[in-house]
This record gives sequence, C-alpha cells and structure tokens, in this order.
Amino acid sequence: MDLLNKINDPADLRLLSRAQLKPLADELRAYVLDSVSKTGGHLSSNLGTVELTIALHYVFNTPRDRIVWDVGHQTYPHKILTGRRDQMHTLRQLNGISGFPRRDESEYDTFGTAHSSTSISAALGMALAAKIKGQTGPDGPHAIAVIGDGSMTAGMVFEAMNNAGVVEDINLLVILNDNDMSISPPVGALNRYLARLMSGQFYAAAKQVGKSMLPAPMRELAKRFEEHAKGMIVPATMFEEFGFNYIGPIDGHDLDSLIPTLQNLKHLKGPQFLHVVTKKGQGYKLAEADPVLYHGPGKFNPAEGIKPAAAGKTTYTQVFGDWLCDMAAQDKKLIGITPAMREGSGMVRFEQQFPDRYFDVGIAEQHAVTFAAGLACEGLKPVVAIYSTFLQRAYDQLIHDVALQNLDVTFALDRAGLVGADGATHAGNYDMAFLRCIPNMVVMAASDENECRQMLSTAYQYPGPAAVRYPRGAGIGAAVGKQLDTIPLGKGEIKRQGKGIAILAFGTMVAPSLTAAEGIDATVANMRFIKPLDAELVAQLAHSHDALVTVEEGATMGGAGAAVAETLAAAGIVKPLLILGLPDKFIDHGDAARLLALNGLDAAGIAAAIRQRFGTDAPHLVVKAAC
Amino acid sequence: MDLLNKINDPADLRLLSRAQLKPLADELRAYVLDSVSKTGGHLSSNLGTVELTIALHYVFNTPRDRIVWDVGHQTYPHKILTGRRDQMHTLRQLNGISGFPRRDESEYDTFGTAHSSTSISAALGMALAAKIKGQTGPDGPHAIAVIGDGSMTAGMVFEAMNNAGVVEDINLLVILNDNDMSISPPVGALNRYLARLMSGQFYAAAKQVGKSMLPAPMRELAKRFEEHAKGMIVPATMFEEFGFNYIGPIDGHDLDSLIPTLQNLKHLKGPQFLHVVTKKGQGYKLAEADPVLYHGPGKFNPAEGIKPAAAGKTTYTQVFGDWLCDMAAQDKKLIGITPAMREGSGMVRFEQQFPDRYFDVGIAEQHAVTFAAGLACEGLKPVVAIYSTFLQRAYDQLIHDVALQNLDVTFALDRAGLVGADGATHAGNYDMAFLRCIPNMVVMAASDENECRQMLSTAYQYPGPAAVRYPRGAGIGAAVGKQLDTIPLGKGEIKRQGKGIAILAFGTMVAPSLTAAEGIDATVANMRFIKPLDAELVAQLAHSHDALVTVEEGATMGGAGAAVAETLAAAGIVKPLLILGLPDKFIDHGDAARLLALNGLDAAGIAAAIRQRFGTDAPHLVVKAAC
Repeated sequence: MDLLNKINDPADLRLLSRAQLKPLADELRAYVLDSVSKTGGHLSSNLGTVELTIALHYVFNTPRDRIVWDVGHQTYPHKILTGRRDQMHTLRQLNGISGFPRRDESEYDTFGTAHSSTSISAALGMALAAKIKGQTGPDGPHAIAVIGDGSMTAGMVFEAMNNAGVVEDINLLVILNDNDMSISPPVGALNRYLARLMSGQFYAAAKQVGKSMLPAPMRELAKRFEEHAKGMIVPATMFEEFGFNYIGPIDGHDLDSLIPTLQNLKHLKGPQFLHVVTKKGQGYKLAEADPVLYHGPGKFNPAEGIKPAAAGKTTYTQVFGDWLCDMAAQDKKLIGITPAMREGSGMVRFEQQFPDRYFDVGIAEQHAVTFAAGLACEGLKPVVAIYSTFLQRAYDQLIHDVALQNLDVTFALDRAGLVGADGATHAGNYDMAFLRCIPNMVVMAASDENECRQMLSTAYQYPGPAAVRYPRGAGIGAAVGKQLDTIPLGKGEIKRQGKGIAILAFGTMVAPSLTAAEGIDATVANMRFIKPLDAELVAQLAHSHDALVTVEEGATMGGAGAAVAETLAAAGIVKPLLILGLPDKFIDHGDAARLLALNGLDAAGIAAAIRQRFGTDAPHLVVKAAC
Repeated sequence: MDLLNKINDPADLRLLSRAQLKPLADELRAYVLDSVSKTGGHLSSNLGTVELTIALHYVFNTPRDRIVWDVGHQTYPHKILTGRRDQMHTLRQLNGISGFPRRDESEYDTFGTAHSSTSISAALGMALAAKIKGQTGPDGPHAIAVIGDGSMTAGMVFEAMNNAGVVEDINLLVILNDNDMSISPPVGALNRYLARLMSGQFYAAAKQVGKSMLPAPMRELAKRFEEHAKGMIVPATMFEEFGFNYIGPIDGHDLDSLIPTLQNLKHLKGPQFLHVVTKKGQGYKLAEADPVLYHGPGKFNPAEGIKPAAAGKTTYTQVFGDWLCDMAAQDKKLIGITPAMREGSGMVRFEQQFPDRYFDVGIAEQHAVTFAAGLACEGLKPVVAIYSTFLQRAYDQLIHDVALQNLDVTFALDRAGLVGADGATHAGNYDMAFLRCIPNMVVMAASDENECRQMLSTAYQYPGPAAVRYPRGAGIGAAVGKQLDTIPLGKGEIKRQGKGIAILAFGTMVAPSLTAAEGIDATVANMRFIKPLDAELVAQLAHSHDALVTVEEGATMGGAGAAVAETLAAAGIVKPLLILGLPDKFIDHGDAARLLALNGLDAAGIAAAIRQRFGTDAPHLVVKAAC
C-alpha cells in the first residue's frame, strides 16, 4: 500500500504520474476487498469502480468539480481516496461512516444518494448553478453524474435527460457505468439496447461501412447517405436523441482509455454522455463469477470466499416468499411484481416456479404500481413486493391509480421500520402516516412471522388495496403455519390482560411491549390494523383502563399512535395517552436493535417511558389526579 | 345532428359506412364546442381528438378492446359516443359526469386518469392480463394507450415502455397524440426530437433515399447498407429502440389515414407505437389560434369567443406569482421551477422578467424536486411551484433528496384542499399528513392572501425545506402588502378571544371558524404552522378552555388535528378534543364551496359540529362531566 497510504486527498492523487495509477488501482482494489471482508458492505460494485474513481479524481478538480454517484453504494474507492481510508473499518456501523455518500461526511460527497436514479437531476442542478453564477466554459466547474445501467430504468433519469438535453453552455457529464447488472439481473428494453450498443460497438462499425469497407465511388454515396440521414434522423444513439454528445463504449478498467477520454471531454461544450463498460467484482474472481452473491456480503475470508451460512432464523422476507408461492399455487390469478428486487424481496423461488406470473419491471416503482392497477382492472390479483422506503417512489400511483379506483392490489412492504446498516435513506418509518391518510387503504403491521403470513392472506383476500408492513430480518421466531388463513378485518386482539395501563402495540412493538408490561402489570393489545383501526377495542381499553400507551416502529407524527388519538377524539373519549415511536428526526445507520433501544423502543425503554409519565407504583391514581 | 343522435353506443357507430364518418366528425365537433361553451371544461384537446376517437371505436371492438386515455381531459368525444351525450350538460358539476374517465361511470372508461402519463403502464397491465388468460393473437382483446406528447416527458412513461418493449405476444398499441402541446408550451429534448420526426417524416424519407432517388446499382448498395445498419443499430426511432414497432407520423384528422392504419395495426404482433399528429382546437379557429386560452375555458359564446374577464378577486395563484417576481427582484439567488404548469402556477410574468432563472422541466415532478436539490447544494434558492396533488409524484425525492439533506428548497403548494370541478384526482387533501411525518419539514397553511405572501417569504428565508399550502382560486379578499416580511417560525396567533371552546383553525378554515365562533363565543386561533406546531399555544389554549376543536381543509387522518392530539399527548394534557376536516373518502367534483359545506367545513357546519359534541348552552359544563 505504498501509494495508497500517501493519498489523503485527491490532490495527492493528482501528484502521481500516469504510470503510477495502475499500481495504485491494484492497491485500492486490494484495500476495498480487505476492508469489506472485515466489515461487510457492498463489494461487487466497488471492485467495479476502482479505475473509474481514480480516473475521475485524477482528471477532474474535485471537490470544485462535483461528482454525484448514483445509488452511492459504489463509493468505497471514492471514500478511500478522499480522506476516509482509515475510517473504513467503521463502515455502516453506529457512529461510523456511511455506506453511501453524505454531504455532512465529506466535501467530496456532493450529494447524498442511496435510492437510485437521482444523480442526473442533481448534477444538472449543480451544472446550471455554475452557469447561473457565470462560471461557464471548460474552466468552470464540472458536474458529473455516475450512473449504473440498472439505475437507468427509473423514469426520473429520462425526466432529467429530457431537461438537460436542451440546456446550453453547461459542463454536465453523465457517465453510464454499464456493468450489465443492477442488484438483480437486468431487465427491459433499455438493457437490450445497451447490450446492442456494447456488442456492436455500432457507431464505429457504421462509420466503417461508410468509409472503408466500400469501394471509393460507393464510399462517396454512403457518405452522402450518412450526411443526409444525419441531418434528418439518425443520430446513432438514444442519448444523442436526447441532446447529449455520446462517446463510447470504452473499457472502464483501462486507465489508458479512461484518462485521455475524460481529459478530452473536459473541453467539449454542452451535455456529454460517456458510456463506460465495467465488470462487477472486477479483480476478485469469486465476485466476478457471482456478483449477486458478492453484491452486499457480510464479513468473510477473502481467501476462502463466502461460506454458505448456517440456516438461521427465518426472515420475514422468507415468510413472504413462501407465502407468495403457496398462494400462487392455490390461485392462478396471483401475479407477483417486483421493481428490481427479486433477491431482496424473496422472490427467487416464485420466479422459478411461476415464471409466467413473475414480473421484474426494473427500478421502476411508479410503473410497477400502475401496471398492477391495470392487471387488477382485468380481474387478476397483483401482489407488489416493495420496500417501505421505495413505495415512496410510487406514492401518487398508489393514491391516484390504485386507491382512488379501489383496485384489488396487495402491497407487501418489506423493510418497514429501521433497517440497520443502510441507515436513514432506507428507513421505512413513514409508511403508516403516508398510507393511513389515503381513503380505501387497509394497512396492517405484523407482530410475528406467522401473523405476517396471515396478514398477507388477509390483504390478498381483501377486495381492495391493502398493505402489510414487516421489518427487515428475522422476527421473534414464531412457527409459521402452512395454511392460508386470514384474520378478521380491522380487529386487534388482547395479548395480555393487566390493569391501569393499556399498551396498544403495533407490529414489531408487540413483543417488547409484552415484556415491558410484566413489571407494571399492564394490558397489551396487538392492534394488528393501523387502518381500519379497531375503534371498538380502543374504546373498550380506554373505558377499562386509566391510561393508554401506543407503541409503533415508525414516525409518531401522523402514525399509528396518532390514529388512536384521533379515534379517541372521534368517540369523545378523554383519557391520558402516551404515544411512543420513532422521533421526528432522520436516524442514521447502525444495528437496528441497538437503534431501537437508543430510541426507547425496546422493553426497557417502553417500561421506562411509561413509568416516567405515569409514575412507578400506582399509575392509575397518578393518572386520575391529572385529569 | 342526424348521425350523432343515433349513436348511443359504439356498436351503433360501427354500423355506419366509412363515408358517413366524416359528417359524423363534423357533428361531433360541433356538439363538443356547443357543449363545452355551455358548461365550461376542456376544449382544445377535445376538438383535437374527434377523428381519433371515432376511428378507435370504429376499428376496435370496444369495450372488449380497452382504450386508456392518458390524462383523460380529451375524452369528451369518447363520452359522447359511449352513451353519455345527453349528460354532457352536467359535466364536472356536483352529481354530474366527470371531466375525466371513470371506471364507475361507464364500462368504456377502462381506467380512471387525470394525472398524466399513467396510460402505458395501465394498458400494459391489461394487455398482459389478456395474455395470461390465454387470449392472445389478433382476435384477442387489444389494449390501447392514447397519450399526448406533453405526457411523454414524465418518467413513468419510459418505465412502462422499457417494460413493454420486451414482452412478446401482447396486443398493446400506444398512440402518441402529438399536438406539440401540453397545457403549457412543450419543453425538453424529447419535444425537439418529436418535432424532428414530424418535420422530416424521416423514416419514409430515409427509405426513399435507399429506394428511388438512387440509380439501380447504388440502390442495391443502399439497401445493403440499410439492412446492415438495421441489424446493428439504427432502428430509426427511439420507440423502436425500446422494442416497439413504430408507425407514423400520420395525420390524426384524416379518417382515411387513421382507419386503414388502425385496421392494419390490429393484425401486427407485439407492442405497436402509432405516431398521430393532431392540432389542438382543430376546427374552431379561435381555439386553433390560441389553444392555451381555450385549454380549459369557462362558459362562453362560441360565435364571439372568450371575452376578457372583468378583473375579479385576486387568486392565491396571483399572490404567488407576484411574490415570486418581487422576491426574485430582491434576491438573485431565487430560481423558479415548474413542472409544466407555467400558467396554472402563475409564473407567466416571472418567466418574462427572469427568463434565466425560470425552469419549466416538463411534466416531471420527480426531476423538478431533485433538480431543485442540486441547485440548493450550490447555494441557490429554488422555489418549486407545484400543485399539492402533483407533489405526490415527487414524494420520495422530497424525503430522500431534499428533507434528509435539509436543503433550502421552498415549495409553493397550490390547489391544496378541495379543487372543485377537477374532483378527487386533483384534490390536495393529503399534503398535511404526508409532509408532516417527514423530519426537517416546515409546513404552513395560509389563512388569507396577505398571510400567504408572508408565509412564502418565511418559507423562503427559512434555511431548510419549507412548504406553503394555499387553495385554488380566490381567498377572502385580504389586501396584500408589498413588503417581503416574514412571520415568526412555529407561532400561531389568537384571532378571537372567547371562552369554553377554543377553535384551532388551519389555513382556509380560519375564516369560517371565526364566523362559527360568534354564536358560541369561542376562542379562535390561526395556527399558521402545521409543522412545527405551536405547542406552547396549544397548551395555553388547553389550560384556559374546556375543550379544543381543530379545523382543517384536508384529510383528518394524520393531518393537522392529529398533530394537535399528538402535542396534547406529548405534553400530558388531557382535554376533550374535536377534530374537524375532510372525511376518509374520495370527494368527487363539484363546486368547492358547496362541497366544503356538504362536509361540514363552512361556518354553519363547524358551529353545528361543536354544538353536537359539546352541547348548546354551557359547553364547558357538559365537557367537564365527560371527563
């Protein structure tokens, strides 16, 4: 690590000779592999961007030139070269550095990313800001978006290109990092198109037809044809049709291609589009062979590779995947839809068993939801598997296309609540608030694995839009039945009968609430439904207790506790109420259980909050005095 | 109207001879003009789709073949031909027919639309449903999306095309209704591309180069060139690159082009893309000359055309437009952004005065918000003017790109609350709930025109994300100052001091609450901020009154009243609370004031609800007994 250890800033990198960059790339690649194998994190994508990262910081004047990394999980080489080499061991851990770019972590992180496909919009904003400030021309600051081919399937990329392609005098460079992969294998027409671009090297080839393969007189004709065609149509690639100057494809691991190309591009006017081909996992044979396995591994020994994990506790994702196959076997109308999260959503087996009813629509949440609406119009029963945080991308489609028409679409909301190492960008903290306000919606939260299965069946059988939220990872270890039985709509259940205090718990908070209730002999209800809320149970508990406590793994503003408060108000019931849940702030990465505890959402925290509000010994007396 | 009067169903239309279709089109166009001039509604777009509508119902076997009309405000001819001719006089009125397609209005309205760019996703769902049911081949049902060139700029169109382009054996037809217009003039690279397609008629021309302009031996060469090129690249249009078979452009007012083309298309396999060129306002000279003016007129005399309206009350949209110009004159950092709503958002004058700081990004709400985030990163101060209902399209971008990074972006939310004739699809009822749950957001609701201006200045000066919501149309007539003064962050104000009951009113509900308070001598507070809510004022009012009432023009689930309930719970205050607002259902079109009254949100309704809950004479006594 002789070279790498000297680089504490890209300015150090720019002091190196061209000849030193290749050995630096080798060191950087080794550092990434060693580092990720010790912390876990994203691997394949980072091995693929080693040379591109070096080339960008070498050619461009960062941080004055702005690099926006789309998705951002490919930024470990960038982090290492921009002063964070020695913090890599804290990656994605509580109080450690983030697995994504963050503006508050480094001036080199010009834009926080994590959800895909935002980079061109942001970079266009930056490029235009420079223009507005009068900093134009090749010496002005450049804005560079680095985006993978998977991210190109999201519509906002096209919105950004449509806008950027007509703006003059901006230093905007879009680099397509084409590795023929998003997290799941690539899908869609655009991917086929990119494959054609790559395999054909077509633009060069087409020019050859005109210039060298033909005898001289015909060459002249072909040239005329080409010029004629150019003025009217052609311009070769879709990206040029959007107003970009297209260059590529070039080898993204060849510094001798990358650096001169980037140097030339710096001097061209207007929006530029550079097509770079890289290989996920480049330089580590095991990752090259299975980039999906090495996409986001835990800790492993690089010499041995990832070992098959011992069968751990069943995750909620697996519960969903099993349910989906079982329900599909029973009902031919079931259609499974994922926006590019086949593995993450547990749909690998479903795809194998029901290929005709499996649709990976790409990173395209908006389309996924409206496509489901179209299927539902025809009497099919779509199940959209989507992370809570990504449903935010399809919010209008949920309202306008599904809920307003009261269509029968089931939403399986994985990663609801805190998500751990991915942090604030991926937190599923808002779905209860943003779903609950929509008419016609049914919203459930699973308190254990078996209930998750029952709720999925319930949502599926319900003839309108219904969502089931469940957390990342394993649950409490409840045995999951084989049946496809449902639970009564809008009904909660009392899990523990106590007195004085009634805890109305939602989803994952049922288990710690039960533990918390022991010490204070509180009643605990598993409310099950955020909407329709069991108003009867709320009233019953209010009338038979001195105070109510709600507990949810989600933002309290507008969430499940708020629903209880509204229900009490609507019923004219006046009763002390304590609302517990996630605070009104973005919560950074770290172990999810630890973060929940830090936010008072473990058994001890719940008990402590209740004691603090209502006193320690005879809560009902204290409460009465307060009225 | 001899022909039109006989058509009560498209089956009647299909009995006509080809020769009768042209006179039918004339009758239909006259009927549309007459009808819209009497009711108001959308005109230009409907005059442009007369022939296309006739051709589609003539060639296709509707309703078995599904037509999905994007946006849907061009469906009056469709409504007239599908049994709703005699209901056109009720258009967009309470209990009348909708201005958009609605599944519950007619079996010919296969998919409810109103927000743009959903049609291809929905039609793909329908086409795939037919395939999954085994109804493939030219005799199976067809799904047809009719989409305007303006709607093509929204990203979800590309998500849908990316998905559709790789699906085989589906009867999917996308018709691009290219009139070089959305509501505002067109923008962006795609529009330039379409213009090139149209002006060049390039595909035909390119073929001619190959086939007729050349001497025979060269023709052979050109053919080889063409074939070679075809295999590798070209395929002429972006739509073919997405896997569609592209046909066009053809004249969308020429039934002799439309009908044979559609008949041929019925027999082609896989996704088809037909490019049709129409003229907004076709056949009515005044609308042809000014399609923007005739986009959505009120009632008018067709012989005379639209008369300049007498200056009416100032609308909130005008208040925003004036504020934007005034603030821009004072602060060079201000950037104005609209997603294709220059007129609707009141930005015409801003564009004229500050063209370098005006950005119409197309129908592209996602990009609009992240683009603003990019600008804000560079220290500029973007103002995104967006209807409440359309902000739903950019919800994730608001959370992930703006709020999480706490960037200084101002959101001017026009059309918050009920919107009248446009109905449920356009209602801005959810923003308080979906914005409030997001950390770092500031959310205000304007109670009058002058306060709207002050709030805009306040949001603008606040160094993080802040939104001001204001309703469609005119306010109470408050005089609007010229200053750019701000109001204190998170502070409400008491507008009327009473006793017993305190009404905590938000935005538009302050005025009727003040009237309602007269009869019951209630206190009224103008809360101003939904977030941060004035917790001090809430506590003060709770302690000095017997009961609290909240009133908001928005969904109560998770809304401003819920915020008050949460605040009381957090402070440990136990107090009777009545939450008034919009109910948990979608509210159809009709006069907004009338709809508010029907939902109890006028002065009489507010007073009645308070009396019903708390008794008529001495509310505080009744309340105390309930505790």
